[in-house]
Amino acid sequence: MANLKIEKVEVTDIRFPTSLEGHGSDAMHTDPDYSCAYVTIHLSKTDLKGYGLTFTCGRGTEIVVQAVKTMSYLVEGENCHDIWNDFAGFYRKLTSESQLRWVGPEKGVVHLATGAIINALWDVWARYENKPLWKLLVDLSPEKLVSTIDFRYIRDVLSPEECISMLKEKGKEQADREKEICTTGYPAYTTSVGWLGYTDDNIKKLCQEYLDKGFTSFKVKVGQCLEDDKRRCNMVRSAIGPKNNLMIDANQRWEVPEAIEWVTALKEYKPLWIEEPTSPDDVLGHATIAKALRPLGINVATGEMCQNRVIFKQLLQSNAIAYAQIDSCRVGGVNENLSIYFMCKKFGVPVCPHAGGVGLCELVQHLQFWDYLSLSGEKENRMIEWVDHLHEHFVTPITVINGKYIAPKVPGFSSEMKEESIAYYQFPKGTYWENRANPDHIMLAQ
Amino acid sequence: MANLKIEKVEVTDIRFPTSLEGHGSDAMHTDPDYSCAYVTIHLSKTDLKGYGLTFTCGRGTEIVVQAVKTMSYLVEGENCHDIWNDFAGFYRKLTSESQLRWVGPEKGVVHLATGAIINALWDVWARYENKPLWKLLVDLSPEKLVSTIDFRYIRDVLSPEECISMLKEKGKEQADREKEICTTGYPAYTTSVGWLGYTDDNIKKLCQEYLDKGFTSFKVKVGQCLEDDKRRCNMVRSAIGPKNNLMIDANQRWEVPEAIEWVTALKEYKPLWIEEPTSPDDVLGHATIAKALRPLGINVATGEMCQNRVIFKQLLQSNAIAYAQIDSCRVGGVNENLSIYFMCKKFGVPVCPHAGGVGLCELVQHLQFWDYLSLSGEKENRMIEWVDHLHEHFVTPITVINGKYIAPKVPGFSSEMKEESIAYYQFPKGTYWENRANPDHIMLAQ
Repeated sequence: MANLKIEKVEVTDIRFPTSLEGHGSDAMHTDPDYSCAYVTIHLSKTDLKGYGLTFTCGRGTEIVVQAVKTMSYLVEGENCHDIWNDFAGFYRKLTSESQLRWVGPEKGVVHLATGAIINALWDVWARYENKPLWKLLVDLSPEKLVSTIDFRYIRDVLSPEECISMLKEKGKEQADREKEICTTGYPAYTTSVGWLGYTDDNIKKLCQEYLDKGFTSFKVKVGQCLEDDKRRCNMVRSAIGPKNNLMIDANQRWEVPEAIEWVTALKEYKPLWIEEPTSPDDVLGHATIAKALRPLGINVATGEMCQNRVIFKQLLQSNAIAYAQIDSCRVGGVNENLSIYFMCKKFGVPVCPHAGGVGLCELVQHLQFWDYLSLSGEKENRMIEWVDHLHEHFVTPITVINGKYIAPKVPGFSSEMKEESIAYYQFPKGTYWENRANPDHIMLAQ
Repeated sequence: MANLKIEKVEVTDIRFPTSLEGHGSDAMHTDPDYSCAYVTIHLSKTDLKGYGLTFTCGRGTEIVVQAVKTMSYLVEGENCHDIWNDFAGFYRKLTSESQLRWVGPEKGVVHLATGAIINALWDVWARYENKPLWKLLVDLSPEKLVSTIDFRYIRDVLSPEECISMLKEKGKEQADREKEICTTGYPAYTTSVGWLGYTDDNIKKLCQEYLDKGFTSFKVKVGQCLEDDKRRCNMVRSAIGPKNNLMIDANQRWEVPEAIEWVTALKEYKPLWIEEPTSPDDVLGHATIAKALRPLGINVATGEMCQNRVIFKQLLQSNAIAYAQIDSCRVGGVNENLSIYFMCKKFGVPVCPHAGGVGLCELVQHLQFWDYLSLSGEKENRMIEWVDHLHEHFVTPITVINGKYIAPKVPGFSSEMKEESIAYYQFPKGTYWENRANPDHIMLAQ
């Protein structure tokens, strides 16, 4: 076995000035500069590297960068083989460090940092095995895959033995599904038609554009003004017709009773789901909203800001969500997301991952492909969010054809960014930001 | 009105080497160096300053320090009068900053930083009014006090109007209670007898010592080894007798079913409460544990690591806790804690604040005195945690006599640390840490 000792954990603050054009704007995040804390794992005695990241919205990225630096002492000097051989133990080591856990645990800044580090370690693993991450996950034995999960705080609903059984059930028909994701692909939905910052004309134009591209599901941001929302939902529903899916997303804008009232007022546009109706911490609130909207045929979806598996566990226990929207970086990386997939399988709730931002599409596709091949075996009621921004900064960007994600064949987690993009958008010393700081030399994004 | 423009937010990383003596050790935090991110608000054109802090356990403090620095741009240049006139709006400005909220919101690192800043702004206010904070709170009109609260995400259980009514009810008998807290004081309980790092002999000695000092309630750490816990609980119960209170604290050590089993095995020692049986994020888990233990006469308590008012709301809605253990710094400072007190009042759950660490006793006493004078009007089933460490580093440390907290009369929030303590324990450049970094010059704590 090669010596895969980790020499250094490098972390970089990278920010894209997306706020200039209203991309990504919603009821709570009015001017996001899509950003990330970008982690590179350097190994000694080999050129193999691992790349991971966690998505952020601009200000605050430097706090996550600091958290990665603080945690690096737990990673540097370790041998990758030891980590992979006891990945659950290593996850626990990061998330339960006896002093550091006070400022978490497993939530917010420190958990975003954990996600970036853990994802980079999976990227190394997949590259070392010369496989795309989804294929590495599919090829691991059920026992080995389940051994990467820390079951702390979810053993009341899920055991390792149950997870292994679930995987053994689905093993047989994998080959057909694998061929499928590599050729025709896996369903995507688009959020790129309905950011709050977009004009009506732009939305109409985009609906047609994405229909032409083969999309059948469209998401619109709501929650700032009911009359606007009615107009926009009506516009999109008219453009996409009665058979395609319209989803709406409030980005945590409402109180619980307000959510029920507001969404009820939009029922004639037949949204498939209302996403993030209220605080991501309010499990019981989501359950109340779900119960009230169920008779209208409208479902509740959430997840992109659900801090960890314990919140997902409760959302499932309380029948609060009909769609689980995992995020590849919000929780502690691949390992914790696997545990969430297993819980969703157990409770019969489909996973429709959150994506967009910086690199979230690139990363999360691997998890959803694994789910399709090894766990759920189903596409029914499942799709991956797709947003048409910033993919050009990745070495192996996603491929979406005819409204479907095509599985990548390149080894790794698709998480490596281009060197020139890093040099240009690194904050605050990259070329873009240095020039922008000088008012005589304002340069806009490429 | 004086010009109270904020010139600068200064933040310092201060760490005490408490791990050297096993102080503060529990089942999850085996070697804490009690620490804090210490905030000083400097005003222009006046010597008046404000001090706030948030407690941490050593490593990770630098992340909170970075978060305070990141948020400072929202504070510097503001006039304190404007903040106090719309304190809920200012709280919202800090917690919902459109880019920064992604790495929270209202949880973990960024919320600890918010707490330190907000608490410092209350310290300035109390100093400016020449009153201890508890007295400032008591003297504010009900309308003014309630105006400081951001009701987002709790309006389904609480309205501002209800809060104002609650305060108006209790106004009349305040004078007697005020005299009482300034003379005989308000009940404390001690955690200083039972840290996991302490020897049996030390525990026995300490029980007697605190009985002699007038304490009637004693807390013991459990959760590492059941046989040890039985021995230690038996020892403490024997030492304190059947009429005094024994409380046990697992610091999140258990799974839900494991908690029920373990605590049931300790029932003969008649604990008043089991504290933090499982993940602080698991509302439904706490509810399940509470339901199972209720027939045994054992209650569930939690709060010190509950991230915000939304979690407390759900713990109350689901009948999961019989005691709410607010922390002065974990949530977003005084304002958010007031909202938690109001919800507890509405649901009939007494507040027994978490304290200890660095400065938590100093700060939280003010809130509990306010509750006694203005809101609950009761001491029944209520007490403030007391830990006998590090008070000597504060300019106006707590006064605990005969097992009771005596209300301070000095203006402010009791949050100012001594300059010499800061110089000595500042990390990593304080005298203590500089010398310790040099192995030839190891100096132990004072």
